[in-house]
Amino acid sequence: MNLTQNDVAAQLLAECMPDPVATFEAFAPVNIALCKYWGKRNATLNLPVNDSLSVALAGKGSTTRLTRLPNAGGDEVFLNGTAVDAGSRFHKKVVAHIDLFRATVPGFLRVETRNDVATGAGLASSASGFAALTRALSGLYGLQLDDEQLSILARLGSGSACRSIYNGFVRWHKGVRGDGMDSFARPLPESWPELRLGLLTLTGEAKKTGSREGMQRTVDSAILYGSWPEQARRDIARLEHAIVQRDFTLLGSTAEQNAMAMHATMLASWPPLLYWQPESVQALQKVWQLREDGVQVYATMDAGPNVKLLFERASAGDVYAAFPELELIIPFE
Amino acid sequence: MNLTQNDVAAQLLAECMPDPVATFEAFAPVNIALCKYWGKRNATLNLPVNDSLSVALAGKGSTTRLTRLPNAGGDEVFLNGTAVDAGSRFHKKVVAHIDLFRATVPGFLRVETRNDVATGAGLASSASGFAALTRALSGLYGLQLDDEQLSILARLGSGSACRSIYNGFVRWHKGVRGDGMDSFARPLPESWPELRLGLLTLTGEAKKTGSREGMQRTVDSAILYGSWPEQARRDIARLEHAIVQRDFTLLGSTAEQNAMAMHATMLASWPPLLYWQPESVQALQKVWQLREDGVQVYATMDAGPNVKLLFERASAGDVYAAFPELELIIPFE
Repeated sequence: MNLTQNDVAAQLLAECMPDPVATFEAFAPVNIALCKYWGKRNATLNLPVNDSLSVALAGKGSTTRLTRLPNAGGDEVFLNGTAVDAGSRFHKKVVAHIDLFRATVPGFLRVETRNDVATGAGLASSASGFAALTRALSGLYGLQLDDEQLSILARLGSGSACRSIYNGFVRWHKGVRGDGMDSFARPLPESWPELRLGLLTLTGEAKKTGSREGMQRTVDSAILYGSWPEQARRDIARLEHAIVQRDFTLLGSTAEQNAMAMHATMLASWPPLLYWQPESVQALQKVWQLREDGVQVYATMDAGPNVKLLFERASAGDVYAAFPELELIIPFE
Repeated sequence: MNLTQNDVAAQLLAECMPDPVATFEAFAPVNIALCKYWGKRNATLNLPVNDSLSVALAGKGSTTRLTRLPNAGGDEVFLNGTAVDAGSRFHKKVVAHIDLFRATVPGFLRVETRNDVATGAGLASSASGFAALTRALSGLYGLQLDDEQLSILARLGSGSACRSIYNGFVRWHKGVRGDGMDSFARPLPESWPELRLGLLTLTGEAKKTGSREGMQRTVDSAILYGSWPEQARRDIARLEHAIVQRDFTLLGSTAEQNAMAMHATMLASWPPLLYWQPESVQALQKVWQLREDGVQVYATMDAGPNVKLLFERASAGDVYAAFPELELIIPFE
């Protein structure tokens, strides 16, 4: 039962009746996980160990335009207006994702992707990028895939991309099947207009260990990772309750503890995996001091040194005063 | 079965035939844990969740002289030559420890303690302090307690003090009994003359959360703590093997992973417990860079921001070049 990505895509696309158009553009938002995706049960198909839950950043993400190139000998890839070298990792990943569909609909494409967010801010552009590419491929080929099918196909490009198919709060159900056909994301019906996110770009230094490799090292070597699935289970339940009740203290504290627990599993790996820089410690200490001073602000961090803040509109002034360099994001605009 | 410390001490001292002298002095070394004591199964008696293993720092520790004061109305306590205020926490802890023996041998004492190590370096002076005090009390009263009994009594003052009864490598057996009569330390027969420790005093800032409180918060709130006993079990076995085989890479890597895993359980607590300062991250990054450059050096950390280095004599030059401010300690002199 060693399925390839192509096996899964072929199965999903088998009943589609392609009806291609010449060009198609799609958008997908960036998402920030409040309960993290950390650890795979199947690395080929990006099947996770645990459910995760994110919030999409309305209007911030990737826009991808695809154009069919009837006479070309290969795909052309542009990122933010610049041609991407065919030998690069980025180019190869995009081509590999198109290949999943090419078995069904042959031919090469021009791919023009624009990201609204700077990569340095620690927002995972691969999630919005693969979600936008998947949505654009479905549109270009007229495949009429539903959102859950799009979510599965986006997941094959990058795990967390399956959440970027939707706006708002999104839960990725890990599923139990070996082929991952039950491992996709679904949106939650609730919105939270008062919710704010603050991005702190502390350092642009490139990380030594990618998140794919870091995740694998943690699963393979951290004894403490054994308790992570229980952590995620508890946190998902708390977050859903917090969202339904609009209980910000519960939402923020759960998201922060979940992020710290994820970084804890990395630290407990061998060799120790620490994405933090000295500035990360300073920022966290500042967040904790703000809370001691009565400001309801919480932190979350992904596989990088930057810190993201969670707060509500009423606290924005206090948070800005402490972090004047913060980039404000309103997820539910 | 809610035993007090006095119940345990009375049981231990019941068969002693006191034969007091006028004054007695004892020394006990500081110890640094390679597998940490983190979490109590009984907070009153300082009974641990897991076995721990440490190395004593030969010649660095606490020297305590006790003198009987036949006509005094209370104990007099001096630390490094200065009288300690009777209302202070330090004074109260010393008196409480003497009280464990006072039920058997009445009368007040003058306590003169000198510590060889600055508290700022992150060396736990309470471990050597309570071990020296316990040894001095036994000597002053002529109680003829053996080392395991001394270890149990020292543990009542401060858990890790039970290890400071001995020189060299020491293992604290957690025991299983409710009264803790099987929870004491024993020395390992091996020595390691080439072993070196380096102390880095990164910051003298007082910590906000004591280790007793931090330990309790971790046990109470960190889901990841559920995997800590397994971590400690594996690490103890690896360390004993490394010591017998004199395998420094195994010793160092196990000690570092154990320390990082302990800090990971703190980080996964709520609220998050981070003893690190930005300087701690810098020092760890430097250690990891040194290892990438081929220098066999490992880090350990206790409930504070400072970093302790483990290396062998052959690497001392390289380690000094990277950390010129390092305080060198030779545990087996």
